Amino acid sequence: MYPRPVQKLIDLFVKFPGIGPRQASRFVFYILKNQEIAQELREALEELAGKVKFCSQCFRSVETETLGQVLCSLCLNPKRDPALIAVVEKESDMQNLEKTGAYSGLYHILGGLISPLDENSAKALHLREFFERVKKILQMKSRCEVILATSATSEGDLTAMYIERILTPLKNQYPGLILSRLGRGLSLGSELEYADEITLKNALLNRK
Amino acid sequence: MYPRPVQKLIDLFVKFPGIGPRQASRFVFYILKNQEIAQELREALEELAGKVKFCSQCFRSVETETLGQVLCSLCLNPKRDPALIAVVEKESDMQNLEKTGAYSGLYHILGGLISPLDENSAKALHLREFFERVKKILQMKSRCEVILATSATSEGDLTAMYIERILTPLKNQYPGLILSRLGRGLSLGSELEYADEITLKNALLNRK
Amino acid sequence: MYPRPVQKLIDLFVKFPGIGPRQASRFVFYILKNQEIAQELREALEELAGKVKFCSQCFRSVETETLGQVLCSLCLNPKRDPALIAVVEKESDMQNLEKTGAYSGLYHILGGLISPLDENSAKALHLREFFERVKKILQMKSRCEVILATSATSEGDLTAMYIERILTPLKNQYPGLILSRLGRGLSLGSELEYADEITLKNALLNRK
Amino acid sequence: MYPRPVQKLIDLFVKFPGIGPRQASRFVFYILKNQEIAQELREALEELAGKVKFCSQCFRSVETETLGQVLCSLCLNPKRDPALIAVVEKESDMQNLEKTGAYSGLYHILGGLISPLDENSAKALHLREFFERVKKILQMKSRCEVILATSATSEGDLTAMYIERILTPLKNQYPGLILSRLGRGLSLGSELEYADEITLKNALLNRK
Repeated sequence: MYPRPVQKLIDLFVKFPGIGPRQASRFVFYILKNQEIAQELREALEELAGKVKFCSQCFRSVETETLGQVLCSLCLNPKRDPALIAVVEKESDMQNLEKTGAYSGLYHILGGLISPLDENSAKALHLREFFERVKKILQMKSRCEVILATSATSEGDLTAMYIERILTPLKNQYPGLILSRLGRGLSLGSELEYADEITLKNALLNRK
Repeated sequence: MYPRPVQKLIDLFVKFPGIGPRQASRFVFYILKNQEIAQELREALEELAGKVKFCSQCFRSVETETLGQVLCSLCLNPKRDPALIAVVEKESDMQNLEKTGAYSGLYHILGGLISPLDENSAKALHLREFFERVKKILQMKSRCEVILATSATSEGDLTAMYIERILTPLKNQYPGLILSRLGRGLSLGSELEYADEITLKNALLNRK
Repeated sequence: MYPRPVQKLIDLFVKFPGIGPRQASRFVFYILKNQEIAQELREALEELAGKVKFCSQCFRSVETETLGQVLCSLCLNPKRDPALIAVVEKESDMQNLEKTGAYSGLYHILGGLISPLDENSAKALHLREFFERVKKILQMKSRCEVILATSATSEGDLTAMYIERILTPLKNQYPGLILSRLGRGLSLGSELEYADEITLKNALLNRK
Repeated sequence: MYPRPVQKLIDLFVKFPGIGPRQASRFVFYILKNQEIAQELREALEELAGKVKFCSQCFRSVETETLGQVLCSLCLNPKRDPALIAVVEKESDMQNLEKTGAYSGLYHILGGLISPLDENSAKALHLREFFERVKKILQMKSRCEVILATSATSEGDLTAMYIERILTPLKNQYPGLILSRLGRGLSLGSELEYADEITLKNALLNRK
């Protein structure tokens, strides 16, 4: 019942993560009421398309105008340990780990997680590039630590196990390859009364 | 820590109603991963800017390419009663009333509500146009029913009272001007145990 | 794994409306830690059993030490209209209606609602007594207004319809029997954008 | 407005953890409708008062009819390590740790946590008894591991720090006294995107 161009934009916003038809229509009427936003959005989208690429090593987004391959500022930073790699699902996870200030290595952004329901979900991830990256490090330095920093969800665990399996041949060849996962236990604010058994078991085993 | 064009688009999405920085960044990475969406968005925004205007009578959005004033399909519909007007806050409220199939009049979209905290909030609404619209109807037909169909919130009630005040001179002059408000009472699914006193009082008084 | 008397009390509290095992065990340990509460509880339960009966007319709880039938203070109040009866599900609904200060009649507490899934649910309600009560009023005064003040839920509506059906023979005989239901429409605080179709339709039809 | 015995019982239930007046009144009407529950409750409360005591070592509840001090089944179990003690806030926390099946030591139930707002909150806890218990173990076995198994909340952390301070003299004297806390990190199901900085930092540091 909305005009066609209004409905078209609603339909696009509905594709956004977490957006339903009601909020999508609020977006469109917000834009209709604020025409300068529409203009700024178009310019920002153009800039995004023209000036943002992905780091060829860790797949983080980078602002650049060069045509060839680029490396991001972290991958170029000599103070970061290139033989310590945290594998994460997405760029915002990387940002969250950076905020802790407790990490001095590099990252590898998978671009998603493996879904147990979608056989092809592994193919869309940057797994082959990761294997080659680790292999090259081991060939050069004979040591490499990989932190499987995926979420503590079933998809995150599945993805971590999958990566462990992929790296097995390298692990057999290079004893200097160390795999670890993020520590499990009580998260900030969690109460024993409401904690699940697996978390409590981890908290007991990982006590220190 | 995101590339500048990424951050710029995040900052724009944060202005959208109900969107925080986290969701805004998810939007941008969704777009980065789906470049065809970026292109479709830009086209849809362009079309929105070029082909959508507001009905000069009820302020609903209309698809048009004419340069002058336009009337929407409802305002042009001879089956609708032009002397029955539901005043609503926004276009989606109008759509919700239409979905009931229980309304045969026209609408007037205010474009917002009066805020008790913002003295200028009344100026941004299509109130002057509404006064003129009702006046013209009364001059021609000597009868007009106005349904103050604002939300049952303090801002909605304030706006309804404000409109009643604005229309007082017309009401004094034309006895055929009838003002009403949407019925108050129990909404679908509400239980007496959890209903507030005012709603229960309305439900008692409006029993039928 | 708890001591048997602890578990027994947990099992009893679990039967309480809205209480799960976790909260039930918190109750028991709260009592264990506060022994004076245990004593007060036992006394209060004894008093409840010994001194509280139900009004023989409206089925409200009454404090009394007489052995025979009792009438509650409302049913005895000469200022209340005995020919105006609000039929409610439970005593707290009655209390909520009283709080509005907008009602001058009496009540009839059903003691529950009819469940579409339980054929016998009607039998547990004070329906027969209600029929006799209304019949007697009509025989004496030839007028009686019944407000079917059940919740706006499917069970509440079903019960209201059921009572309407029960009263049909009386209605055919006595034109002075008036049946009404609580008004439907927007409840306090509800916004048009989130209102369901049926509530909006009621709000339109019941505008005033 | 309720009869005095009804209101009295409502007032008692309102003191229960997590119960407001509305739910308290539902409890009372539930009891009024189910008189056999009232009787069972009174008997269960009597049994609780007469047959439940607290273990004189770990302060767990025990069913007993002896008049003197009692020990619970866990404290009497020769398969449990008496020199490994998990200090917990309350009995249900102990039960949750037991459910993991990953713990072979004993417990010490504090009976609450220290509140930063209440200077006397420490006095209500079984801290003195804990100090004596640990001291006796060290005198006999010269080794003892204490797991400070309080929740990962500010009160839980404050209590754990307080206990560490209390045990400092023993720690200086007995190198065999080991203090640990439950492991911190990602809990089951937590996503990196929503994890707080402290949890992520712990997860990084406790990776394995």
